[in-house]
Amino acid sequence: MAGDGLALYESVTAWLSIDGIWGQIGESVLRIVAILIAGPIVIWIANKMIDRVILNQAAKRMPNQSRRMTTVGKLIKNVFSYVGYFITLMIILSEFGIELAPLLAGAGVIGLAIGFGAQSLVKDIIAGFFIILEDQFAVDDIIQTGQFKGKVEVVGLRTTRILSWTGEVHIIPNGMINEVTNFSVNNSVAVVDVAISYEEDVERATSIIRDAMGRLEDPNLVKEPEVLGVQQIGASNVLIRVTAECLPHTHFAVARSMNLLIKKTMDEHGIDIPYPRMVTYHRAEGGT
Amino acid sequence: MAGDGLALYESVTAWLSIDGIWGQIGESVLRIVAILIAGPIVIWIANKMIDRVILNQAAKRMPNQSRRMTTVGKLIKNVFSYVGYFITLMIILSEFGIELAPLLAGAGVIGLAIGFGAQSLVKDIIAGFFIILEDQFAVDDIIQTGQFKGKVEVVGLRTTRILSWTGEVHIIPNGMINEVTNFSVNNSVAVVDVAISYEEDVERATSIIRDAMGRLEDPNLVKEPEVLGVQQIGASNVLIRVTAECLPHTHFAVARSMNLLIKKTMDEHGIDIPYPRMVTYHRAEGGT
Amino acid sequence: MAGDGLALYESVTAWLSIDGIWGQIGESVLRIVAILIAGPIVIWIANKMIDRVILNQAAKRMPNQSRRMTTVGKLIKNVFSYVGYFITLMIILSEFGIELAPLLAGAGVIGLAIGFGAQSLVKDIIAGFFIILEDQFAVDDIIQTGQFKGKVEVVGLRTTRILSWTGEVHIIPNGMINEVTNFSVNNSVAVVDVAISYEEDVERATSIIRDAMGRLEDPNLVKEPEVLGVQQIGASNVLIRVTAECLPHTHFAVARSMNLLIKKTMDEHGIDIPYPRMVTYHRAEGGT
Amino acid sequence: MAGDGLALYESVTAWLSIDGIWGQIGESVLRIVAILIAGPIVIWIANKMIDRVILNQAAKRMPNQSRRMTTVGKLIKNVFSYVGYFITLMIILSEFGIELAPLLAGAGVIGLAIGFGAQSLVKDIIAGFFIILEDQFAVDDIIQTGQFKGKVEVVGLRTTRILSWTGEVHIIPNGMINEVTNFSVNNSVAVVDVAISYEEDVERATSIIRDAMGRLEDPNLVKEPEVLGVQQIGASNVLIRVTAECLPHTHFAVARSMNLLIKKTMDEHGIDIPYPRMVTYHRAEGGT
Amino acid sequence: MAGDGLALYESVTAWLSIDGIWGQIGESVLRIVAILIAGPIVIWIANKMIDRVILNQAAKRMPNQSRRMTTVGKLIKNVFSYVGYFITLMIILSEFGIELAPLLAGAGVIGLAIGFGAQSLVKDIIAGFFIILEDQFAVDDIIQTGQFKGKVEVVGLRTTRILSWTGEVHIIPNGMINEVTNFSVNNSVAVVDVAISYEEDVERATSIIRDAMGRLEDPNLVKEPEVLGVQQIGASNVLIRVTAECLPHTHFAVARSMNLLIKKTMDEHGIDIPYPRMVTYHRAEGGT
Amino acid sequence: MAGDGLALYESVTAWLSIDGIWGQIGESVLRIVAILIAGPIVIWIANKMIDRVILNQAAKRMPNQSRRMTTVGKLIKNVFSYVGYFITLMIILSEFGIELAPLLAGAGVIGLAIGFGAQSLVKDIIAGFFIILEDQFAVDDIIQTGQFKGKVEVVGLRTTRILSWTGEVHIIPNGMINEVTNFSVNNSVAVVDVAISYEEDVERATSIIRDAMGRLEDPNLVKEPEVLGVQQIGASNVLIRVTAECLPHTHFAVARSMNLLIKKTMDEHGIDIPYPRMVTYHRAEGGT
Amino acid sequence: MAGDGLALYESVTAWLSIDGIWGQIGESVLRIVAILIAGPIVIWIANKMIDRVILNQAAKRMPNQSRRMTTVGKLIKNVFSYVGYFITLMIILSEFGIELAPLLAGAGVIGLAIGFGAQSLVKDIIAGFFIILEDQFAVDDIIQTGQFKGKVEVVGLRTTRILSWTGEVHIIPNGMINEVTNFSVNNSVAVVDVAISYEEDVERATSIIRDAMGRLEDPNLVKEPEVLGVQQIGASNVLIRVTAECLPHTHFAVARSMNLLIKKTMDEHGIDIPYPRMVTYHRAEGGT
Repeated sequence: MAGDGLALYESVTAWLSIDGIWGQIGESVLRIVAILIAGPIVIWIANKMIDRVILNQAAKRMPNQSRRMTTVGKLIKNVFSYVGYFITLMIILSEFGIELAPLLAGAGVIGLAIGFGAQSLVKDIIAGFFIILEDQFAVDDIIQTGQFKGKVEVVGLRTTRILSWTGEVHIIPNGMINEVTNFSVNNSVAVVDVAISYEEDVERATSIIRDAMGRLEDPNLVKEPEVLGVQQIGASNVLIRVTAECLPHTHFAVARSMNLLIKKTMDEHGIDIPYPRMVTYHRAEGGT
Repeated sequence: MAGDGLALYESVTAWLSIDGIWGQIGESVLRIVAILIAGPIVIWIANKMIDRVILNQAAKRMPNQSRRMTTVGKLIKNVFSYVGYFITLMIILSEFGIELAPLLAGAGVIGLAIGFGAQSLVKDIIAGFFIILEDQFAVDDIIQTGQFKGKVEVVGLRTTRILSWTGEVHIIPNGMINEVTNFSVNNSVAVVDVAISYEEDVERATSIIRDAMGRLEDPNLVKEPEVLGVQQIGASNVLIRVTAECLPHTHFAVARSMNLLIKKTMDEHGIDIPYPRMVTYHRAEGGT
Repeated sequence: MAGDGLALYESVTAWLSIDGIWGQIGESVLRIVAILIAGPIVIWIANKMIDRVILNQAAKRMPNQSRRMTTVGKLIKNVFSYVGYFITLMIILSEFGIELAPLLAGAGVIGLAIGFGAQSLVKDIIAGFFIILEDQFAVDDIIQTGQFKGKVEVVGLRTTRILSWTGEVHIIPNGMINEVTNFSVNNSVAVVDVAISYEEDVERATSIIRDAMGRLEDPNLVKEPEVLGVQQIGASNVLIRVTAECLPHTHFAVARSMNLLIKKTMDEHGIDIPYPRMVTYHRAEGGT
Repeated sequence: MAGDGLALYESVTAWLSIDGIWGQIGESVLRIVAILIAGPIVIWIANKMIDRVILNQAAKRMPNQSRRMTTVGKLIKNVFSYVGYFITLMIILSEFGIELAPLLAGAGVIGLAIGFGAQSLVKDIIAGFFIILEDQFAVDDIIQTGQFKGKVEVVGLRTTRILSWTGEVHIIPNGMINEVTNFSVNNSVAVVDVAISYEEDVERATSIIRDAMGRLEDPNLVKEPEVLGVQQIGASNVLIRVTAECLPHTHFAVARSMNLLIKKTMDEHGIDIPYPRMVTYHRAEGGT
Repeated sequence: MAGDGLALYESVTAWLSIDGIWGQIGESVLRIVAILIAGPIVIWIANKMIDRVILNQAAKRMPNQSRRMTTVGKLIKNVFSYVGYFITLMIILSEFGIELAPLLAGAGVIGLAIGFGAQSLVKDIIAGFFIILEDQFAVDDIIQTGQFKGKVEVVGLRTTRILSWTGEVHIIPNGMINEVTNFSVNNSVAVVDVAISYEEDVERATSIIRDAMGRLEDPNLVKEPEVLGVQQIGASNVLIRVTAECLPHTHFAVARSMNLLIKKTMDEHGIDIPYPRMVTYHRAEGGT
Repeated sequence: MAGDGLALYESVTAWLSIDGIWGQIGESVLRIVAILIAGPIVIWIANKMIDRVILNQAAKRMPNQSRRMTTVGKLIKNVFSYVGYFITLMIILSEFGIELAPLLAGAGVIGLAIGFGAQSLVKDIIAGFFIILEDQFAVDDIIQTGQFKGKVEVVGLRTTRILSWTGEVHIIPNGMINEVTNFSVNNSVAVVDVAISYEEDVERATSIIRDAMGRLEDPNLVKEPEVLGVQQIGASNVLIRVTAECLPHTHFAVARSMNLLIKKTMDEHGIDIPYPRMVTYHRAEGGT
Repeated sequence: MAGDGLALYESVTAWLSIDGIWGQIGESVLRIVAILIAGPIVIWIANKMIDRVILNQAAKRMPNQSRRMTTVGKLIKNVFSYVGYFITLMIILSEFGIELAPLLAGAGVIGLAIGFGAQSLVKDIIAGFFIILEDQFAVDDIIQTGQFKGKVEVVGLRTTRILSWTGEVHIIPNGMINEVTNFSVNNSVAVVDVAISYEEDVERATSIIRDAMGRLEDPNLVKEPEVLGVQQIGASNVLIRVTAECLPHTHFAVARSMNLLIKKTMDEHGIDIPYPRMVTYHRAEGGT
């Protein structure tokens, strides 16, 4: 009977190929689990080290470089995590017996399709490097690209994250960031067009506005506001343009201060803000 | 006659090639039917296992990772079903004697056309992996891409499904998801512009609105609302901007609460919401 | 007489040049006519079998799969007719002595042009398979892609046919169906914005509308409608938003029921729907 | 002197290469003229035969296929004339000693440029075949593609001609016909939105319109018109939607009949069609 | 001393390579000048011959082909001048020792760039040939392509010239002429929408307009105008559509005649053309 | 000590590699400086010669060709300066030991990228040559391409410079100049639409305008203006169209003369220019 | 003691595993640190030299070239820093054992993807060189490209930086700068359209405006302003166009001076600026 059992076991193991294929599978599973545990730990340690070395030490010791250091530090963490995930994936796939290298080296139809399909990936990475290299913008800058505007959170290897002032996160591939407007490099200019009616004396209104602007107090103001003159003679009003140079991207707040002061000043001096106007000719039905 | 029958049978089987081509066809049909039955069962079992291991166990034990685990789990099920369908198709085609491998390896006109035609497929898959890798969004996030906005249902290998709040399902290839706006990561900001008339005292109105906003109660509110100031002096009103930080993507509900409270407060204090205005000059026909 | 017949036959065949070039042409013509007759019959039989097997039998026995079965059945018929037409064309062309295979295998200028020109064909077919595989939509679903909306008639190998509600048939290549919105998967939400005047008590109006909505009867309604609140304070009215979950793509009908009920309720309670408003300042010509 | 003359003649002919190059030119001119005369005749005969065989005979005997037969017949004539012109051109060019074949076979810069430049030509031809194969539309159908709408005149190998109802001929390359809307396959639906004033009783107006629609007589009408209900509560009116199923692409005519009947009915019942409305608040200048 | 002079001369000529490089340059200059003089003369003679043979003779003898003959004649002149300029350029460049052929045959980077850059040139030429071959339009036709409309002046090998009615010449590459609308092939239809007021009896107005249209006299009119019916019930008027078939592209002139006649007829019958209308509710400030 | 000095010198020169690398650098610097001085001088001389030969001499002797001669002359100067800069750059780079030729000949990744990147450069040059060859426009012509309109300053090898009438210089790559509108070839047509009121007698107004137009005096006028008729019956006026053929691109000035004359004539004859009109129905609040 | 030192050295090197893998790493780290320190210093020195040589010396000695010298100087600094960063990166990567050269030379899938992805980089660089070569614009010019307008800060190898007048920095890849408008080359023209009412005498108004314009004083004015005439007869006014040539890009300021002067002059002469006008027909409800 032992012989029978042995024979049965052998036939089963033969069928299951125990010590053969199943043993290999067991080893593979162990290796994969080990990698899945080890991978994140390595990435976590690397991130800590980057934080400590670049973001804390280097940024502190070179304060005039700190804006760029922060950006580069976040990028390196981002690159590092890609490399980590990529190596982990390669190892797991090789455990399954799938090798990507020859696939990428081949130049058949699949290679062609991958080459075409991956071009925007390459374009993103190239664009990302140039954003850092040319210092187009750094973390915490307020930028606009296309219709997306907000504060830069991370400049990654492939995408940039922008936080809008209403809380949304915009995630934009670097290759799509063709034309960037950076609001954080120079002082901004707040522009307010004041409407006065045709009946008003333009020069008197201009001097009143100029006096009021001289009294404007705003922590963001860099220079005293300037009254440029009669910007436009519109359909029912005359527009007088006022500008004020202020700290980077504070022009909305400064324009609000200007609006409030102009409204109060014009009320005090009895200058009307003109409503839309129309001349109507009443005509009786029948007679002309 | 038996000979005749036999001869007839032989001639028929000879014509039908029984034991030859027909036998092979029979075997093929059996194999195909077996595959068509076995394939879905294997996929079903695999899906169950993924559900149990990743979605239930892993997600529970690593609650801080559960958002991403759910996304990855659904993606793996999606990838698994593709692989299953693909292998099933390959086996069936090989039963018909059609081998795809040499077709794909060849570099003639067909290969060229396939290579070009398949590039957007490759682009979709690459984009899909990066959505997961970069954690651009996860299942249950509310995102907007292009003109499509809604809650993410599944991030698949090739397409992402978004459920709009009015019930439609948007199915978008990952390669078309270039610029994503994610509403579920940060707190949102509700923005309400209150219109008051020119005759109103702006500072009084501002302080009344500020008082009212201090009384606003909404479960989604994170911070007390803020009255920013005179946003714009418009054609027939003065706009005062009020903002309120609230939980992610609750700004529509919070703005509704704010609208109701502002309407009630302004009614109580007798502050008119200004209608559009116009100054009309009546002129008699004939005389000027 | 046999000799006469033979002579006649010989003279006819001599005139027809049988055994020479004309004989070959005659044979070719016969073969082409045979193919032109046989081809459609084969396709017709195949279509019947597909109808009987897949559309009737399989769909009935697996009712939970019937939606997809119908789609796949129509697709198979579509693919079958392409293959039929293609083989017929190949045979006829080869009778004329034109072989397409070497033309397609060659990599000269013509091959290049064909490869480029055919890429959108390949893209369409790939996209078509993924529509089925990912179950993006099935026959009888109501979908929208780009500016085309309607009920899906057929998902073909290369094109999808959509029937708009006003009767037009839209025929769209699968490769152009990038972003699909499917209205038939989930319940829809009917959205109605009710305008009330500024003078109206918003909370009273809201409760009246809420009461009325509780009495709404519509076979498509899934849940009792919900009054969300003050959506917007507009130029001459206050908008109160009401939503109602209903069966897939019945929101137009439900919104009509809601419109009617709201109009009646507001008439009963004497709540005006506000017309556009304007404040006019009459000013005499001459004096200011 | 004769010798001199002969010598002169010989030197001249030697210079002119008479009997040599000029003789060849003469032959070439003769051949070209012959081709220019013979070519159009062959094409004319072929066209006549196609007319007689396909358009007259085949179309008559298979009336249910006649719509498609006409389309295919015109296409074959179109293809035939291309082939004719192409062969004529080839022969003439070869008389000038220009051979196109090696140029097309070469893979240098010129080949590359031609390959790229010709891709839209190939795309047009492929698209043309699929229009016929998929029966997207046939001659005399009314279709719309992009901004061009009209009756199909010819579906050619490369372009489709559409005749607009105001007489213009639109000529569109088949490759540009991506998304087609065919108005001639199904019944159309005429849609009329009737505006009634807020003061009107909606249910009374609806029943009057429904009664009137029951009396509508139009040869194109397929079903009795349907009154759907209150489509929208607009700024100064209530819109009631009426639809009527009618013969393919007769909805403009049917909508005109409906407009006339609705106008008459509403006049009879004294239901006003509301003009735009506005509430005006007159305010004296100076006092508030 | 002579020896010295000779030596000097020899050294100079040796330095200048007289009899060598300078003699060649002299010859080259002579040849180039000869070509620059001969080239235009040859082109001029060729143009004259084409004018005489095709445009005058052929066009006269085949009057039904004259429209196309003119187009082809102008094209041949255009092609001829290109060939002339090209050969002239080739000869001059070869005098400078620059040979284009090997440059074009090479497949390096420059060849690649040229191949890509020249593809739109090839596309233009292919499109040009098909415009003639398919008889899309001919010289003197009025066409519209994209936003450019006017009378065709020349269909060239690469570009088409269109003369707008206000005098501008539009020059459009043939490859950009994708979708053409040709106004000169069929009769045009003039469309006039007559507005009548709501108070007017629609059927009476219709019959008055129909009577007036019956009296319309215009040399371009092909058929008596048709009154289609009530096209639309607008915000403050009822639109009655009138159409008139007329000679190709005379619909603007015919519509002007119709406008004048309708205005006079409606004045005679006292039918008002309605001005925009509005119902105003005057409301006193303060009370409701 | 001399030995010491010598030794020191030798050690220094040995360290500096004088007579070796530094000597070569010295020579290179001298050569580069020589080229930087000689290059601009050669280009300057060449430009002077082109000015003298083509622009002055040739243009004078062939006055009917002077428009094109100027264009070609400027182009040759432009080409010449490119060639000059290119050769200068090549020589300097070769002094640094950088050779571009093998880089361009190689077909690796860099070559591919350059080939793709340079295609728009090649396209610009091809387009530039065709602008001259086809005489699309010449220097001093007024053209419009896309949204850019102005007088042509230079047609260069790669770009065209256009001077707008308000002083801006538009620099446009030739490859972007797809569709050109040339205003300087033909006479222009000034178009003025005169609005008269409904109450006015259309035929009387037409004849008064026609009389006035007969008296129009403008140096740019080519033909007497033409009164086309009733262009449109608008919402509150009847538009009568007047056109006047005038010298190329003088239609703005001529239209201004026409406007002034029409205004004066209509004032004299007491024909009102109608203001926008509206019929208002006053309705009391409360009653219907 | 020497032995002790030696022993210490040995123990340290032993700990550092010098002579083994750790020694190599140590050396690598040292080299990388050295490069990271040396690289920026070299770039800093080079920048200083460029400043001194080109920007200060060369620009001063050739004042007529200074505009271009500044641009070229900034470009060279930009190129230099790219080369510096590139070499630094190459050295660091080679320390890690990564060599880019073979990767770029290979023509597999990766090479293909890089070649496609890098094409826009190459295009940017080519475009950048042509901007300088063709002197399209220089540093401090005011230009507009697409929707971006401002003063040029730097023309870099790959991107151009533009400073808008409101303080934002626009960073635009050179390859995107297709069509440039340069405002700094020629004088600008300020254009003001003065509206007068229909009742006004046009010729009197024109002469008053002309007189006033003759008195205009503005430092930027180049020529006396010109009154062109009646530009348009609008819906409720007559527009008289006035233009004034002024220094480059000062037209906004000059137009403001003109606006102010025109407003004052028209007030003095009692010429009204017309408000929008409308004729209203009052009609009683009920009667017609």
